[in-house]
Amino acid sequence: MAQFYNTKDTLVVDAVDGVLRGSGGRLARLDGYPHIKVVFRTDWDRSKVAIVSGGGSGHEPAHAGFVGQGMLTAAVCGDIFASPSVDAVLAAILTVTGKAGCLLIVKNYTGDRLNFGLAAERARAFGLNVNMVIVDDDIALPDLPQARGVAGTLFVHKVAGALADAGQDLDSVTSAAQKVIDSVISIGMSLDTCTIPGSPKDDRIRPGHAELGLGIHGEAGAEQVIYKDAKHAMATVVGRLERSLKPGPHVALLNNLGSTTHLEMSILAEQLARSAIGEQIKWIVGPAAMMTSLDMHGFSLSLVPATKELESALLAPVAPAAWPPLEAFGKVEKHPLPDGLTPIQPMPSAFPARRDLIRRCCEIMIRAEAALNALDSKAGDGDTGTTLATAARALMNALDRLPLADLTQLYRAVGMELSQTMGGSSGVLLAIFFTAAGDASASGKDWIASLSAGLNRIRQVGGAEPGDRTMIDALVPALEALPRGIDAAARAARGGADFTGTIRRAKAGRASYISEERLRDVNDPGAEAVARLFESLSVGGGIGQAAE
Amino acid sequence: MAQFYNTKDTLVVDAVDGVLRGSGGRLARLDGYPHIKVVFRTDWDRSKVAIVSGGGSGHEPAHAGFVGQGMLTAAVCGDIFASPSVDAVLAAILTVTGKAGCLLIVKNYTGDRLNFGLAAERARAFGLNVNMVIVDDDIALPDLPQARGVAGTLFVHKVAGALADAGQDLDSVTSAAQKVIDSVISIGMSLDTCTIPGSPKDDRIRPGHAELGLGIHGEAGAEQVIYKDAKHAMATVVGRLERSLKPGPHVALLNNLGSTTHLEMSILAEQLARSAIGEQIKWIVGPAAMMTSLDMHGFSLSLVPATKELESALLAPVAPAAWPPLEAFGKVEKHPLPDGLTPIQPMPSAFPARRDLIRRCCEIMIRAEAALNALDSKAGDGDTGTTLATAARALMNALDRLPLADLTQLYRAVGMELSQTMGGSSGVLLAIFFTAAGDASASGKDWIASLSAGLNRIRQVGGAEPGDRTMIDALVPALEALPRGIDAAARAARGGADFTGTIRRAKAGRASYISEERLRDVNDPGAEAVARLFESLSVGGGIGQAAE
Repeated sequence: MAQFYNTKDTLVVDAVDGVLRGSGGRLARLDGYPHIKVVFRTDWDRSKVAIVSGGGSGHEPAHAGFVGQGMLTAAVCGDIFASPSVDAVLAAILTVTGKAGCLLIVKNYTGDRLNFGLAAERARAFGLNVNMVIVDDDIALPDLPQARGVAGTLFVHKVAGALADAGQDLDSVTSAAQKVIDSVISIGMSLDTCTIPGSPKDDRIRPGHAELGLGIHGEAGAEQVIYKDAKHAMATVVGRLERSLKPGPHVALLNNLGSTTHLEMSILAEQLARSAIGEQIKWIVGPAAMMTSLDMHGFSLSLVPATKELESALLAPVAPAAWPPLEAFGKVEKHPLPDGLTPIQPMPSAFPARRDLIRRCCEIMIRAEAALNALDSKAGDGDTGTTLATAARALMNALDRLPLADLTQLYRAVGMELSQTMGGSSGVLLAIFFTAAGDASASGKDWIASLSAGLNRIRQVGGAEPGDRTMIDALVPALEALPRGIDAAARAARGGADFTGTIRRAKAGRASYISEERLRDVNDPGAEAVARLFESLSVGGGIGQAAE
Repeated sequence: MAQFYNTKDTLVVDAVDGVLRGSGGRLARLDGYPHIKVVFRTDWDRSKVAIVSGGGSGHEPAHAGFVGQGMLTAAVCGDIFASPSVDAVLAAILTVTGKAGCLLIVKNYTGDRLNFGLAAERARAFGLNVNMVIVDDDIALPDLPQARGVAGTLFVHKVAGALADAGQDLDSVTSAAQKVIDSVISIGMSLDTCTIPGSPKDDRIRPGHAELGLGIHGEAGAEQVIYKDAKHAMATVVGRLERSLKPGPHVALLNNLGSTTHLEMSILAEQLARSAIGEQIKWIVGPAAMMTSLDMHGFSLSLVPATKELESALLAPVAPAAWPPLEAFGKVEKHPLPDGLTPIQPMPSAFPARRDLIRRCCEIMIRAEAALNALDSKAGDGDTGTTLATAARALMNALDRLPLADLTQLYRAVGMELSQTMGGSSGVLLAIFFTAAGDASASGKDWIASLSAGLNRIRQVGGAEPGDRTMIDALVPALEALPRGIDAAARAARGGADFTGTIRRAKAGRASYISEERLRDVNDPGAEAVARLFESLSVGGGIGQAAE
């Protein structure tokens, strides 16, 4: 599977430099590539306890992404899933450690323990005060005395970073970190394995299964369980954690193991809330990608009791953007729908001339059904005539309840009728046309100016301009000519409609997907409908008193 | 491909509720499920211009994730890749709009334009002041007059949100938003298509290719280009953007389209810095997932000129954690490696008794090579003897440069020699043992207490306890007995080593992976080495004056 990197040899150093580029100058690295990859704070003054962590790469944003005020002082990055060397760890310690000393936070893997352990020893030989804690939050393998360190490590980073930032001494910081380690539990589930750059993908997960209790280094999960859905997945994970869970409120850390989507992670958060332990989750960190396993499609859940000290440390300010803020985990707040979604039906009123005009317009559209469908079938899906005729029939049935005597209300009511009876884009556009005309009329514009305002609005919303081969090509000249009378408008509309038959390239609407050849000499059916409407009204005696 | 959701019908509402759960009560939704999915700020007082955006779901964290102080007032969520209904948009507008009015920020897709457009019209009929802007930042299809709206929309959200928050009026907010729209350009590249829940995955991308100029709704990209590596990918994207790029400094938004790893995104950031336009990038937002296309393995790059007004709006405080802070995009700051990585060679000094003792120890290990290898071959990979003998030979060669007269320095020097000549975990553990013993000696402890301090340290770092079938099982009783003389220590070590042969289950080290049957009556080779060392010293005349 292709991935965005250059060579396997340069991938970690390129990524670390990428992190530094966007750090606003708050992060620097040691000049020790390729073997020594150490990222540290440039705003560090050595008067406080330094917090150093790290390990193999492939867990981004851990660990370089958590370097900054309130969390790590330095991160030591190994190659993908490989512990950094003793020299790299020692270089980090020597770079950031002053008289206040240094705490090493190490995930429980043999390589990390040994290399960080020896580096600590060598740093002590320089007279530096170095403590080390080992995180073993994974409960996946209960029989193994040495549990692995997974995403619960983030809690340890945050607490140690906050206390160090507050000026506490090395022993206090160490003991607070150890207290978190003693009480945090984690487990992960994945639907797929991760893709290790340069290695073939391991397809060990059986179809319909998920790995439960996975490691974060591509190693096989503790077991494969049936995968059903998000609810069942969260219930399974929660079921394992429940065995070791203390009573009382907890902080949850919901970690994206790599390529799980935001959508899925939010669904999992919702399932956590509805799970057997939902009531015990007082706070949440995430969902977010914090301790990943490259592109693993999975998640992990870490839980730690919510003591006052822990809450205070987790809420302390923090610079790294990769740490998602601690948030109260609670109920979904629902507000009632606002009034106005079901519009008030205007009072019907009588105005025979307008009633007659609307009826005539509708009849024109109904008569044109077959002809417009035939035109549309050459450039579209052949339903323009039917769409307009159906809406016309519905409007005729609505005549008795229209506020015919109030032009403003009438425009709006016609818009509402069309939006409810006419499908597709054209229905929405005509609804916008009449609703906007109503607004303009309300603000005192005359009936032609109001229709022009409606036209302007559908040009903005629909994005079609004259020449784009739409009904706009007939409507614009028709409304411009209308002040000179219905005959002038009819001639202008016809001119516009026939012009659309000469446009070789449609720029909007469905016809924009049709080849030029098929559009030759075919009028746009929307423009044709406008032309037929004005022409028929002209022949049929004009608009009469309806516009008064 | 399995994904973490329950049913296709509930996936968006579950996800929206998940977002609300973790919002700390700052977000609520309307009680309009399943058709009306509107998320809005609970800390909103209608005295400022409301900023409403939305569209189809599948772009998380957009849009619900950007609701909060300084960005959106409300988000309207459609189903996956489907525009929300007119009613849903109207409900959002009515919920959050006061006298200051409302700005709708709409991505340029027909469905969104029409539904937001009609909702705006309906809201205006209620007397509300509603403006609408349409984002069309995608440059992938230069011939299409209606460019799509992609991740550049985030800039518009941020700028409009900041100005509204600052109390600017609707026209000012609208015109600032439009100014961003007029100047922002974006393009995306993907190595794979997205997985639409419930639909089979489209495998239209040819092997060795990437899609350039993709949409964010699963539609095919504008073209397929050869995919070579991250550098070439960024160069291709930059090449397209360059055609429309204005001179002067820019802000870049580097967007993860879904399942690209943090590692890859950081590498792409680094490639951007090194690209032809790297010098023009003054600020960066991300890399982060902001406007995704479900789990698409790709990225998009958006660029906008860095005006003073834009910088100020982008730097304004913002509540949604999904907005990554604007950061100066700059150079990689490199610091020289600290002193101390190459340890100062201690001055050699003479102490014949100690020199003789070390030589005897080394000879014992060299003689035991075959026997220890044979033991190890039954429980491990058969190299314990060779590892120890090789280190012993190296140590004998180093006798002339050891600080034999200074016990503290001698312990440290032996640790350093072993760490440099002995591979694997045992080398690191013995180096820790001797270095820690040196520290203890420096603090005034006698030679036996110093060795015990070393032992304690390797128990902490290595994590092995007595009974775990390691060399600890011989070392612990031997050092406890040592104050009573070398003969007592030798007997104790032998007892410990023979005890390891009775342990059926190894708990640490490589033997923990071996079946119980194979471990029967086989002493741990590390413990056996310790026993042979003490026994041979005992027989050979003890430790003599070496310990003085």
